[in-house]
Amino acid sequence: MGIENKIPHYGDILAAAARIAPYAHVTPVLQSSSLNALSGADLYFKCENFQRAGAFKFRGACNAVWNLSPQDALNGVVTHSSGNHGAALALAAKTRNIPAYIVVPEGANPAKLKAIEQAGGKITFCGNTMKDRDDTAESIRQTTGAVLIHPYTHVDVIAGQGTAALECLQQSPTLDAMIAPVGGGGLISGTLIAVAGKAKNCRVFGAEPAGAADAYESLKANRRIADIVSETICDGLRATVGDINLHIMQAHELEIFTVSDADTISAMRLIWERLKILVEPSCATVLAALIKNKNRFEGKKIGLIITGGNVDLDSLPW
Amino acid sequence: MGIENKIPHYGDILAAAARIAPYAHVTPVLQSSSLNALSGADLYFKCENFQRAGAFKFRGACNAVWNLSPQDALNGVVTHSSGNHGAALALAAKTRNIPAYIVVPEGANPAKLKAIEQAGGKITFCGNTMKDRDDTAESIRQTTGAVLIHPYTHVDVIAGQGTAALECLQQSPTLDAMIAPVGGGGLISGTLIAVAGKAKNCRVFGAEPAGAADAYESLKANRRIADIVSETICDGLRATVGDINLHIMQAHELEIFTVSDADTISAMRLIWERLKILVEPSCATVLAALIKNKNRFEGKKIGLIITGGNVDLDSLPW
Repeated sequence: MGIENKIPHYGDILAAAARIAPYAHVTPVLQSSSLNALSGADLYFKCENFQRAGAFKFRGACNAVWNLSPQDALNGVVTHSSGNHGAALALAAKTRNIPAYIVVPEGANPAKLKAIEQAGGKITFCGNTMKDRDDTAESIRQTTGAVLIHPYTHVDVIAGQGTAALECLQQSPTLDAMIAPVGGGGLISGTLIAVAGKAKNCRVFGAEPAGAADAYESLKANRRIADIVSETICDGLRATVGDINLHIMQAHELEIFTVSDADTISAMRLIWERLKILVEPSCATVLAALIKNKNRFEGKKIGLIITGGNVDLDSLPW
Repeated sequence: MGIENKIPHYGDILAAAARIAPYAHVTPVLQSSSLNALSGADLYFKCENFQRAGAFKFRGACNAVWNLSPQDALNGVVTHSSGNHGAALALAAKTRNIPAYIVVPEGANPAKLKAIEQAGGKITFCGNTMKDRDDTAESIRQTTGAVLIHPYTHVDVIAGQGTAALECLQQSPTLDAMIAPVGGGGLISGTLIAVAGKAKNCRVFGAEPAGAADAYESLKANRRIADIVSETICDGLRATVGDINLHIMQAHELEIFTVSDADTISAMRLIWERLKILVEPSCATVLAALIKNKNRFEGKKIGLIITGGNVDLDSLPW
């Protein structure tokens, strides 16, 4: 199967939206007159921090789980994730009443472990390299017969993540642009496909931490650069961009803005104070990018995908 | 004019709702399956932290401002408030394009001062006693001809605050009970009148910090106890209950639960983590009261009025 076969089409995103509708929340789009004044643009915050399990990740996980054939679903699903995808997949599996095996590196955040356990996920610890994670997940897959659901390269995950942008465009149809964070690339690639299918005049931009700018560098170099050591407060955006995800970004000629952690922290605080919602640092990259590139967006209607709200309140960055 | 003349009736609350509709937000009612599981009840959080100026106080201030005759409105409004009422009144006055004079004690929180200034309020500093506040406000009233809008005893303020419960019952019609925080008593008295008029089978409860339980003690003693020195983290609930407000509580046989600051802080953290919204400590008293009196509410549908979201992120209580 060539790479083209693994890229979801707009129709797959429409199908994903219908498939996850019984389980996922329709999240609100919030506005703030003071943030509009501050940015000079008309901002529409698509609040996936209110999504089940606290992040957009539930969309992709849920789509992948419910697109399995009954036979494939029988033995459950497996993934490796120290973050939101693990809890999302566990919760999605629970909606179908199948097991979810979540491989988690030793020393992972206890709050995230608790979220996975509360959703009924079966945790297996592993070492801290990508090889440890892959090997452990593969071993569980072979032992249990569970299906591997990769956090951002799986076709159904990408299609599911695209439903956030689709829903945002249904709620706010006349957006000039949409900005989404870039980590492994599941969300941004789903967003690119959804927006291209739904709103031809809406342009998509990516926001990536300067300390984990592998997608930005990969686009610039026109080849996947996978050896960047991430150094950023945005724990949801440290993953290395996937091959398939980079391919989609290239095909759509994505422009990525990089932002410093300091700007991201300021933007996160603005979102907390003005919108009165809890969001993770990763989310705030989109507002930081918008503020930094104010002249590009002035007077326009901009959708900002707020990815999640799973914050550790004991270690806030101020 | 006797005290009865200053008590708003249900019709005044309906009128207030119509009067403020062009200016105030209809705030959402949020639910959380994990908080439902934790409490054993079906919880409906009426999220006034999303109200304009960040708190329900805008409802009462807006109603008072727009119920002034054109002649009375001419010289603006004046109040004393170190908290949300000051910013709310300034913003309400701005919607009618009249001046707002806000008397603030020296040493007030800079964030609150900034909110008052941003809303166009004219700040006058005063000393820290109630007499200082009253005298300064009275002097401004005499000099400017502005109308005094008291934070919680003014009839139009009480009627305006009652629109939060009214709106909540329109959004969630079959509530068995509603819990609101008790400070000076503007919100709880408006809530009692709104609920009595709209939903005969819904019972109202109050939640008050144990360290500022003057309303609780006043109801017990059957007379207003005004000399309690407040000691609580709930900065919105330190005010002494008003005569008129106590009168309304007595007439409706209100039951008040007192809660410790420790329980309030835990409940506040639960709201932040599970609902992903920013709320002030004062709001969390209602969830703390519900959890502490779990057996009273199990299996029931309970509305909880979340009063505001103006939090100082630099001094969180954990």
